[in-house]
This record gives sequence, structure tokens and C-alpha cells, in this order.
Amino acid sequence: MTEPDPTAEAFDVVGIGNALVDVLSHEEDAFLEANGLVKASMTLIDTDRAEALYAAMSQGLEMSGGSAANTIAGIASFGGRAAYIGRVFDDELGTVFAHDMRATGAVFRSVPATEGPPTGRCLIVVTPDAQRTMNTYLGSSEFLGPEHVDEALIASAQVTYLEGYLFDRAPAQEAYWKASQAAHEAGRRVSLTLSDTFCVERHRAAWRDLVADQVDILFANEEEAKVLYEVDTFDEALAAARADVEVAAVTRGGKGSVVARGDEVAEVAAHPVEKVIDTTGAGDLYAAGFLFAFTSGRSMADCGRFGSVAASAVIGHTGPRPGLSLAQLADTLQL
Amino acid sequence: MTEPDPTAEAFDVVGIGNALVDVLSHEEDAFLEANGLVKASMTLIDTDRAEALYAAMSQGLEMSGGSAANTIAGIASFGGRAAYIGRVFDDELGTVFAHDMRATGAVFRSVPATEGPPTGRCLIVVTPDAQRTMNTYLGSSEFLGPEHVDEALIASAQVTYLEGYLFDRAPAQEAYWKASQAAHEAGRRVSLTLSDTFCVERHRAAWRDLVADQVDILFANEEEAKVLYEVDTFDEALAAARADVEVAAVTRGGKGSVVARGDEVAEVAAHPVEKVIDTTGAGDLYAAGFLFAFTSGRSMADCGRFGSVAASAVIGHTGPRPGLSLAQLADTLQL
Repeated sequence: MTEPDPTAEAFDVVGIGNALVDVLSHEEDAFLEANGLVKASMTLIDTDRAEALYAAMSQGLEMSGGSAANTIAGIASFGGRAAYIGRVFDDELGTVFAHDMRATGAVFRSVPATEGPPTGRCLIVVTPDAQRTMNTYLGSSEFLGPEHVDEALIASAQVTYLEGYLFDRAPAQEAYWKASQAAHEAGRRVSLTLSDTFCVERHRAAWRDLVADQVDILFANEEEAKVLYEVDTFDEALAAARADVEVAAVTRGGKGSVVARGDEVAEVAAHPVEKVIDTTGAGDLYAAGFLFAFTSGRSMADCGRFGSVAASAVIGHTGPRPGLSLAQLADTLQL
Repeated sequence: MTEPDPTAEAFDVVGIGNALVDVLSHEEDAFLEANGLVKASMTLIDTDRAEALYAAMSQGLEMSGGSAANTIAGIASFGGRAAYIGRVFDDELGTVFAHDMRATGAVFRSVPATEGPPTGRCLIVVTPDAQRTMNTYLGSSEFLGPEHVDEALIASAQVTYLEGYLFDRAPAQEAYWKASQAAHEAGRRVSLTLSDTFCVERHRAAWRDLVADQVDILFANEEEAKVLYEVDTFDEALAAARADVEVAAVTRGGKGSVVARGDEVAEVAAHPVEKVIDTTGAGDLYAAGFLFAFTSGRSMADCGRFGSVAASAVIGHTGPRPGLSLAQLADTLQL
């Protein structure tokens, strides 16, 4: 009998982030102004604001979301071995979140909270230009701390993936450091997505430390990368990222992305979509495709292509998760 | 100063039914067999079965549903004055249900239950042929009884609309009789949709009594009408319905519908749809279009056309409620 190899990974990617249920509604641009919302931003809101905004929104569509959670669901949909760490409450929305995570094939073992606020939710307003404006009531999700980081799970995954959104509270920052150190002690990689320019601005110094010290694979869109490195051009931002991390993937919306590992650089086009309906989840799914390909040993260009295809699978419909099997889609496209 | 006319209606339609939140997932046909489900049927399930079936389902999409509630939301979307009576619990899904009903512009004053089971939900499996197979955990919705019928609200609406699904418990049957009598005492009309062949079979005698005695406007699909009147052909079923009620609308899926009031009969084609994705809510929206046109004083042919157009607005996407303003759609089509 052969003993299992203790150095083999049980998972391709484990994600850590805000466990949220999304509430989406389609509204005209005037709705943003009437409710003091900045298009395409993510704003943290409290209970009162959440209730007032929800009351103003049209009929909604509820579905599991959360940035890193969407990424993990996407990796599982590609057939990757994925797991998620996040904090829900023991309530109906927490049950929905856990169900959907497990239904994708991902492992989700985080024990629901029984004290404190209810499961977090993100009120997402989708305008006719397919932009999403997000208003997050964090609820129980923000109370993720180092005590919730399962180091054995982290050590068993090729890549630990962190979302920027969770970074606002000190215990969450500690959780990220603890997870990163556990990953590196086990000889694994750490990946981070910056998530949001405001989030980067709020914690630039802390981000710069974490990125320089612990991050191997960095995801950012053009604006986020510029804000992190305080530079004015895409090229400067890309150069700064390449100096800082092993792998950098900088996305440019409809213009595609540039991905780089050392001297291996690839410009990747966006995958065409018949009609863009809702960009919610596009960045999350880009990271899913990229990391699935990366953990399968693909080239930088392939990683970018998988990212583009995965993003295309969610922007043609309402909601942040694909409605079809990404493994089948990859097969069909012969990726 | 003119006194308000006490005989004028404040509402076009008030609906009564099971207040449910839908949980939809897309599955292959094999899923139905593996889980012992009969395609296109509605089955009542208990808590254990609901949990087991939910665990087997893929990632879901949650949205407010309930047959008569979908109809009321549709009427409000056309710009009709609509109200709804139904029983939710004081929990997250109950909040979602109430929000969505009010967000359409409909009035929903029913007080949430604080004792008993949680808000009801309907687990809907959508297969690639766009058929929906429904499994309903009624929760608090089935505890609607005569004490929850707001007679003043009923008296203030041109039409009181009842769904067949709610008919399984004796208190609900009493509620329907009470509502019907209150409507007629105020000189209003009563409308009923049969909802489901199994539901008609379970209570055929009770249905026949209610239809003959109280129903002015009857909605049924071909099968339901045949089962109610125990006849073999569409023509016999239509003739029986016309003998029983003032207005009969019998739908035939893709073949459209036949609508009749006395000698005024119209055959109405289905409104074309690019691709049928999910038929959930098609019958509910047909009734919405029909009743909106009816309460606006339109001809039978127009009522049928409004019904067809409203149904077409939900079968091209996932879910039972339109994603666009039906008033705008009616304008665009110059109905």
C-alpha cells in the first residue's frame, strides 16, 4: 500500500472573503442620483441605510455572492478543487450561501455564527449600461478573524486567495497575515485581488506591506493598480506590480488584460459577449479562470484566456455566478 | 367639494394566494428521475423533503413568487391598481416577499405571522425544455384563513382573484368563500385560476361548488378544465366552463388561448418569444394581462392579447416575474 504523499495538495485554491448574499435590481441611472450612489463603486452601509435603500429598490433577485466566493464557485465550475472560508450567520440567508457554495462542488466548512449580526448582504443596483453599484451590509461576514482561519486547509491548497473587500477591520487583516504565513510555511502561494480603489485608498500602507511581503499572485484592475502604487499610467502600475510579485494580472475591462510572470508577458483580449447585461462578478470570474489555469500548470497567456472566458460567462446575464458549467464551456472552446 | 363616490373601486384587482419565495435551479432531466419528481407538476412537500431536495439542487436563484402574487405583480407592472392578501412569517424571506410585492407598486398589508412555520418557499427545478417542476413547502402561507380576509379591501376591488393552490386546507376554502361573498355583496366580480390538475382532482366537488356558485371569471389550462368537468375534449371543457361562468379563459400553452364572455369568443395566439427559457409564471402572467385589460374595459380578444404578451415577458428569462415594465411593453406594442 502506498502512503499518501503528505506534500500533495488536496485543493487547488482556497478562498477567504466576505460571505454575502446579493440582492440585485435593475434601475435607471436617475435612481443612483436620487439615492446618492456613485456608479460602479462599493460602499459599506449600516442597517438603517440598508433598510432605506432596499425599500427604494425595485423587485429583487437574490443569489449567493461575495467576491472571493464567486471566484471559488467559478473554479469549482471549471472542475477545480476549491474551498472557501467565510463567516455567515445561522439564518436563512446563511443556509442559502452554504448551499450554493457546496452545490458548486466547493468545500465550505466554516461554522455559522450564532451570536452577532445576521448574514451579510450586498444590495446591487444594475443600470442599463450593465454597470453594478454595490452597497454592502457586512453583517456577520466582517467578523472573520484569525481564529476562523483553518491552517490545515490553507496548507493543503496550492493557492490561498484573498479579496480586498474584507480588509477593513483589524482582525481580518490579522486573518490575512495568518493565512499567508500558513500558506508559505507549507510551500504554497498566496494570491490577492485588490477589489476596489476606495478600499485600496483606505488601507494603502497595509496593502503595500502585505503585497510586498506575502503576495505571489496579484489581481487588480487598472485603476486599483494605479491607486496602490500611486502612479498615473498603466505601464507604471504594471511595472510596479511586476517588481513586487511573482505573477501580476491587470485587467482593463473591455480592453482585456495584461498578465506577467517574470519575463513572460501576455496581452489578452476580452472574450466577446453578445450583449453585456450585468458586469457583477466579472473580475471575480476572471480570477477564477486565471487561477484554475494557473493551478493546472498553464502558460500566462492561457491563464489570461481562461480568465476572459470565465468573465464572459457572467456578464451576459444577471448575477455574479455562471449559469452553465465552465468545464463544458472550456471544452467547447477547446481551451 | 365633491364627496368621493362610495361605490367607486380603489383597486382593479386584489389577489389571494400562497405567499412564497421561489428557489430556482437549472437541472438536467435525469435530476427529476433521480429525485422522484414528475415533470411540470406541483407537489406539496414537508420540511424533511424540502431539505433533502434543496441539498440535491444546484446553485439557486431566489426571488419572490407565489401564483396569485405573480399575477398581482404583473397587474401592477401594467399600471393597474393591485393589492395582495397572503401569509408570510416575520423572517428574512417574509421581508423579501413583502418588499418585492410593494416594489411593484402593489399594496400588501397582511401582517406577518410571529408563530408557526417560517415563510413558505417553492423549490423549482427548470429543465432544458423550459418546463418547471415545483415542490412547495407551504410554511406560513397555508395558514391563511377567513380571519385574514380583509373584507373592506375585497369590497374596494373590481375583481377578487383566487389561486387554486391555496385550496388544500379547510380554513383556506372558508377564506375563499368569505372573500367571494364579500366581493359579490359589494357588487364586484370573483376570478379563479385552477392552478394544477392534481389540485383540481383533490377537491373536485368543492371546486365545482365554488365555480358554479361564486366564480365570474375562470382561468384554466386545457388539462385543468378537462379534469374539473370530467370531459375528454377541449371543446367540451370550454362549453362546460362557458355554461358555468360569465368569462372563461382557457389556455393551451404554445397554441395560445380561447377566451369567451357569453357569445363573444376569441381565439388568441401565443405571443412569440425568441427562446423559451423557463415557463415559470407563464399562466400567472397570462392572468395578469387578461385581468388588467378586463378591468380597463377591453374586449375579450384584447384581454387575451394582453395575457399572451404578459406571459411572453416571463418565459424568455429565468423566474416568474417580468424584468421590464409591462406598461412600457404594452405601449411599445401599441396594445
